[in-house]
Amino acid sequence: MKPFQTQIDVRFGHVDPAGIAYFPRIFDYIHEAFEELWDVHVGKRYYHLLAEEGIGFPLVHSDVDFKNPMHFGDRVIARITCFKLGTSSLGLRYVFSIGDSVCLDARMTTVCVELDTLKSFPIPTAYRAKFETLLE
Amino acid sequence: MKPFQTQIDVRFGHVDPAGIAYFPRIFDYIHEAFEELWDVHVGKRYYHLLAEEGIGFPLVHSDVDFKNPMHFGDRVIARITCFKLGTSSLGLRYVFSIGDSVCLDARMTTVCVELDTLKSFPIPTAYRAKFETLLE
Amino acid sequence: MKPFQTQIDVRFGHVDPAGIAYFPRIFDYIHEAFEELWDVHVGKRYYHLLAEEGIGFPLVHSDVDFKNPMHFGDRVIARITCFKLGTSSLGLRYVFSIGDSVCLDARMTTVCVELDTLKSFPIPTAYRAKFETLLE
Amino acid sequence: MKPFQTQIDVRFGHVDPAGIAYFPRIFDYIHEAFEELWDVHVGKRYYHLLAEEGIGFPLVHSDVDFKNPMHFGDRVIARITCFKLGTSSLGLRYVFSIGDSVCLDARMTTVCVELDTLKSFPIPTAYRAKFETLLE
Repeated sequence: MKPFQTQIDVRFGHVDPAGIAYFPRIFDYIHEAFEELWDVHVGKRYYHLLAEEGIGFPLVHSDVDFKNPMHFGDRVIARITCFKLGTSSLGLRYVFSIGDSVCLDARMTTVCVELDTLKSFPIPTAYRAKFETLLE
Repeated sequence: MKPFQTQIDVRFGHVDPAGIAYFPRIFDYIHEAFEELWDVHVGKRYYHLLAEEGIGFPLVHSDVDFKNPMHFGDRVIARITCFKLGTSSLGLRYVFSIGDSVCLDARMTTVCVELDTLKSFPIPTAYRAKFETLLE
Repeated sequence: MKPFQTQIDVRFGHVDPAGIAYFPRIFDYIHEAFEELWDVHVGKRYYHLLAEEGIGFPLVHSDVDFKNPMHFGDRVIARITCFKLGTSSLGLRYVFSIGDSVCLDARMTTVCVELDTLKSFPIPTAYRAKFETLLE
Repeated sequence: MKPFQTQIDVRFGHVDPAGIAYFPRIFDYIHEAFEELWDVHVGKRYYHLLAEEGIGFPLVHSDVDFKNPMHFGDRVIARITCFKLGTSSLGLRYVFSIGDSVCLDARMTTVCVELDTLKSFPIPTAYRAKFETLLE
């Protein structure tokens, strides 16, 4: 299994006065990596999923270890794998690193829902197949 | 024990196209509630803690349940209690609710560090006393 | 004429590595002051305006002087006056200051539109009356 | 003269409930395009400029026309030219477009300063040469 991989730039507006990425910004990075995963790996823009298919993957639980700070100017590699693939639930793991040093290890559990009702909905087969290739 | 309480407004710029608070923004709310806690309950602005005393409380772990969405225009009550108070480690629990409905239950573990070295540092006694009053 | 007045806190997550408010954040402040103006002065939450009346005030032009930096921990007073009140167009001026020192002088021109069509729409009389009290 | 060009993705977390890019986010785009300009065109990361040379380019004036909304999922082309190149002052113009449609036309005037004192400082020759190639 080969994780999905994308790059994140720690920009000027992301760091706090101590020069390290302000933690809420790190959750923006996670969402951006998630959008890249949809675009590049799944082959569907997350935007189109919401707008055309009326389904989405809201977060129900997050469990995050902040291991090392990310600094202004760092280029961070995000690797995404799948740690849970239920009928509707999708657990994605994000490991952020700079060289050999792991900065962040996050497990984000989402549920596929119909946007109208927010009721859970089975993950469509074509998408499920893409997440299967990322199963740990 | 009476939790520290503060109010959060879900503003225009915080919600996603589905009309609910974009999850990284929720971590901004948590940090803002944390800053209010310092300002109002501890009696020290978090800014001054960093600038004058050279110590801070970076996040090392977060464990968050997203129970119900927060919508644009909602006024959310945040209640903060302390679930862990070690020599250097400080665990704060944030429960966000709208009326009787809980939206979020977050456990955020921080460690008191010297900013220069990022080495752990004992939580100063005067501050520890304030967090003790919030122990669950 | 008495300007509408509200307070802005320069928080931890708003400042850049040089310790001053990152300029895009300043535009968040302007929008927050605008939302406060609606809520407190006009007596209508901007949210309800959009959701219930189907009208909004998108920005068409901004002209901003950045006179002095705002630092982490600053408490800034925002004063809002009205420099233009046409059939549909609404020009609001935001002056931000700390003590006697002006930080920012911004002229933001918006147009009242129907959200469905984004066509211009006459500012409703009741709201117009409130903006008249702020005319320079 | 060939403008510097970069691409901006309008992401999930950038749009407001009306589905269009929240205007303060647009100023984030401008700053990101500015950082790209430094990195790719000037050949110096803006981060390194601040950290190693102790100079920066704070904004003193912005004049922005918002011509057409940018929607969630849009891929926007930003073109940057130079409309002013004084001893210390640098005026950059950002035109954002989607296909043939211009969304934004922004003139951002910055001044080269020493970060320590915030006093103006002559733009170093090597950088000036790079901005000259973008003069309108």
